[in-house]
Amino acid sequence: VAGADAHEVVYGRRAVAEAERGRRRVHRIWHAEDHGDAELTRLAGSPDHQGVVAEVDPYPYARAHDLLDDEDALVVALDEVQDPHNLGAVCRSAEVAGASGVVICERRAAAVTPAVCKASAGAVEHLAVARVGNLADWLLEAKRRDDVWVYGADAGAPGSPSKTDLTGRVVLVLGSEGRGIRPRVAAACDALVAIPSRGRVTSLNVSVAASVLLFEALRQRGHG
Amino acid sequence: VAGADAHEVVYGRRAVAEAERGRRRVHRIWHAEDHGDAELTRLAGSPDHQGVVAEVDPYPYARAHDLLDDEDALVVALDEVQDPHNLGAVCRSAEVAGASGVVICERRAAAVTPAVCKASAGAVEHLAVARVGNLADWLLEAKRRDDVWVYGADAGAPGSPSKTDLTGRVVLVLGSEGRGIRPRVAAACDALVAIPSRGRVTSLNVSVAASVLLFEALRQRGHG
Repeated sequence: VAGADAHEVVYGRRAVAEAERGRRRVHRIWHAEDHGDAELTRLAGSPDHQGVVAEVDPYPYARAHDLLDDEDALVVALDEVQDPHNLGAVCRSAEVAGASGVVICERRAAAVTPAVCKASAGAVEHLAVARVGNLADWLLEAKRRDDVWVYGADAGAPGSPSKTDLTGRVVLVLGSEGRGIRPRVAAACDALVAIPSRGRVTSLNVSVAASVLLFEALRQRGHG
Repeated sequence: VAGADAHEVVYGRRAVAEAERGRRRVHRIWHAEDHGDAELTRLAGSPDHQGVVAEVDPYPYARAHDLLDDEDALVVALDEVQDPHNLGAVCRSAEVAGASGVVICERRAAAVTPAVCKASAGAVEHLAVARVGNLADWLLEAKRRDDVWVYGADAGAPGSPSKTDLTGRVVLVLGSEGRGIRPRVAAACDALVAIPSRGRVTSLNVSVAASVLLFEALRQRGHG
């Protein structure tokens, strides 16, 4: 395909359907009934294509700073989350919650790959996702705007989501499963909050933790 | 292995670790360094074993009715959720939230398989999971106790979680992704509630929806 090396693919039924009504140009769609399962697996680079692969423009990343323009901006920032399913799941919830966007790290982190597009059920096509080189620096810079508040999720923190004011311009920071938020990123937060844990298995999936915080913010903002 | 046909397996590092400190007897543990990756894949029935497989007693299902004994019982009921990852993820969140248990359907639904144990990060070892033959009938029977309230999650419902009283004995009902709750199950609910949706992709993952409702219930109950 001429010029295809500047293109990316999206695979899976919902991911392709959302790409078709999303922001980036869809150049071509392959269906398994026409081209065969093996050819689609080759095009997708994965057997998880569900019979459909689209050739699309590269993912249109947003500028991180722009995500904070709205006076009720609600942003999720992920500190080196490497699992594509987790990134996709966070993006899906963020889009449903009407969040302003998701900030991810350029290095040691999943980017918006075809696997992430599928895991997000196509939500990334409608969501602003921005990459930053250094998350702690970006958070410190964001806080120079005098009405931005940054909250980090930390299982051991004393603060709880419902006792934290999540209205206004807010960035919710979550770390990778197992390791959590890095110390320098945690230090850049205004406060750390813990989702209540009452069981023996102490950790939530990162997309669940992000979702609980996002919908608590919505509740405080009068939505639901 | 003598008697092994009455045993089940659990695989994955966290799933095996939680089985070891959980309720069922662990008969034997295999490590890939001793037995090889291929042998563990054969024992696990999956390549996702992370180098460790345990032979354990069958999963000890709870009795559904018992889950409502506590006066602040908080139960999640899943209507024909077939995806093992979704069931495992719901169980993980329910355990972290300190829920009384999870009720699942006997038919057309995932049971607590080794894949579910792994997807739950071992949480099923500490959580009560009960199976019922007919979920609508069980909900109607549960409601005959005069202080049990049943709420179904439905994206189109007028009610919102924070405006619904989720204190006391509560059952939260969630359906499978795509299809939602079946009509007869929805009819058995006291009310339907919708998690607010402000994006273009309208549906949350079922484990995220369950988690948002569980932690909203905890908030109303004074936990976090």
